[in-house]
Amino acid sequence: MKNWAVISTWSMSYDGLLKASSMLQNGESAGDAVENLIKKVESYPLYKSVGYGGLPNEDGVVQMDAAFMNGDTLAQGSVAAIENVKHAVSVARKLSLNKTNSFLVGEGATKFAMQNGFEMTNMLTERAKTIWQNKVKEQFKTGLHPYDGHDTVGAVTLDQAESMSAATSTSGLFMKKDGRIGDSPLSGSGFYADSHIGAATATGLGEDIMKGCLSYEIVRRMAKGQSPQDACDTALYPFCEDLKQRYGQVGEISLIALNRKGEWGVATNVEFPFCVANEKQKAQILMANPGKNQKTQIEPISQSWLDDYQKQINAPVE
Amino acid sequence: MKNWAVISTWSMSYDGLLKASSMLQNGESAGDAVENLIKKVESYPLYKSVGYGGLPNEDGVVQMDAAFMNGDTLAQGSVAAIENVKHAVSVARKLSLNKTNSFLVGEGATKFAMQNGFEMTNMLTERAKTIWQNKVKEQFKTGLHPYDGHDTVGAVTLDQAESMSAATSTSGLFMKKDGRIGDSPLSGSGFYADSHIGAATATGLGEDIMKGCLSYEIVRRMAKGQSPQDACDTALYPFCEDLKQRYGQVGEISLIALNRKGEWGVATNVEFPFCVANEKQKAQILMANPGKNQKTQIEPISQSWLDDYQKQINAPVE
Repeated sequence: MKNWAVISTWSMSYDGLLKASSMLQNGESAGDAVENLIKKVESYPLYKSVGYGGLPNEDGVVQMDAAFMNGDTLAQGSVAAIENVKHAVSVARKLSLNKTNSFLVGEGATKFAMQNGFEMTNMLTERAKTIWQNKVKEQFKTGLHPYDGHDTVGAVTLDQAESMSAATSTSGLFMKKDGRIGDSPLSGSGFYADSHIGAATATGLGEDIMKGCLSYEIVRRMAKGQSPQDACDTALYPFCEDLKQRYGQVGEISLIALNRKGEWGVATNVEFPFCVANEKQKAQILMANPGKNQKTQIEPISQSWLDDYQKQINAPVE
Repeated sequence: MKNWAVISTWSMSYDGLLKASSMLQNGESAGDAVENLIKKVESYPLYKSVGYGGLPNEDGVVQMDAAFMNGDTLAQGSVAAIENVKHAVSVARKLSLNKTNSFLVGEGATKFAMQNGFEMTNMLTERAKTIWQNKVKEQFKTGLHPYDGHDTVGAVTLDQAESMSAATSTSGLFMKKDGRIGDSPLSGSGFYADSHIGAATATGLGEDIMKGCLSYEIVRRMAKGQSPQDACDTALYPFCEDLKQRYGQVGEISLIALNRKGEWGVATNVEFPFCVANEKQKAQILMANPGKNQKTQIEPISQSWLDDYQKQINAPVE
């Protein structure tokens, strides 16, 4: 059997990864597999940072960013600050077929989705609305405006025909400003894919990921012969040190990469569970952490971590 | 006297470049110089692709994209599909001071500009409205929807304190879809600046520039020791060939770069006038064209070209 592989961010992408794995195993395309992976996460109402159930901006509106890239042609499509669309990643993929007008934002993006028959729905769940209302009250009391919830789902696929794709989807920072967009829809920052080399996606504080164009940087390092793991390590850790010095701080950043041989790599400056499968390795959730000497430490995820995660995801919100 | 330098896209940026040159000569900052350069172009009503007088989208609305990057800290600010704001670049610069919410699009971007006291005005001139109305009629008759007018103003500055900045501003493709954004506000594609190395900006078909993250690619090549001219040449021409093969076509792309020593470079796949000045070279408009063996050919601009340009810019529109 020919080579195939898939890697995706956060443990929430595991069901999507299983779906993508079986598609790739069956000889389906990298583009179809990555889109279906992302759609699984977008559909799940309890994930607070992606698609349906995603947390809203400060006005209580769920605005989403997503992207799709075809590693064969380098064609890309992106949407940002799009509203009311069930599957932002599918709109991005549709836009990737355009020679012009392939990155749409705001009302124009939402209008395009409507005009092209995409499923529209109110993306704000009761649960997300309650979390938002509680946050508004808390901010009113404390005067603090902390941001969180930048867990973008990103994924990269390699199919048996040696094509690669990358895609991302997120509802962005919880309590972000109306119209704020992060790295996820931005070529080279949130994602990049070149079937001749490899592909990468990012998750974390978009404003800082953009400062280093980290997905492109990883692909460029793989082009020079680095393994995906070395490319991730050497792209992330020196950048974090540099940014801390020049900018005074650096947000949370996690990166995943895959090369055309199906080898993968990960780097992160924070606890970062991710999912991976390829022809030789069965689907699994692994845990990455920043290790010693600017290397990433990767180990099997513990059952107790998964149990805690499930509990947290399902915890009642009042 | 210490080193300073500035380079900017298209002959329309000449007056802005003069302004920036005199600021840099007087010891003012790279950030102030680049913002003032861009503002000059944004203000001029006869330039159809930037700011006031810029051509609208297919709905007749002028939507602008702009960005600002501080090469010392790597801080960036961007706006996209912003409306009714006189100086999009100044809004972008203000956003670059934010740790989060530094890239705003659509209504959220416009609202931010209003709330922060930026000058608001209807950016659609009578002249631009007439050109748009004529185009709508022509498209109705011919059924053709050609795009043009992707002349972004982009500029890079180096000040006497060895700081660098980059900025861009554009009204984007004429007759673009509502919400379409190009490369100009995207880190690494439309612009990138690192005071330790150099900086670059791009102009042309944004959808294709994004496919290669060309501004970041140039800065990375300069980091490896290439001169700005070699970095521009080797980033652009092989990419254009590659994209033609993989994607079937490649749009117009022009690139400018400056390194921390004040040396500059340019590459283009189309006739491309640009402006440059530094401590040793007085301000001038030069003409770049794609030359032989993947090298850019650069020569003084002819008076007849400038006369024709003035005539075209000032031609009556009926």
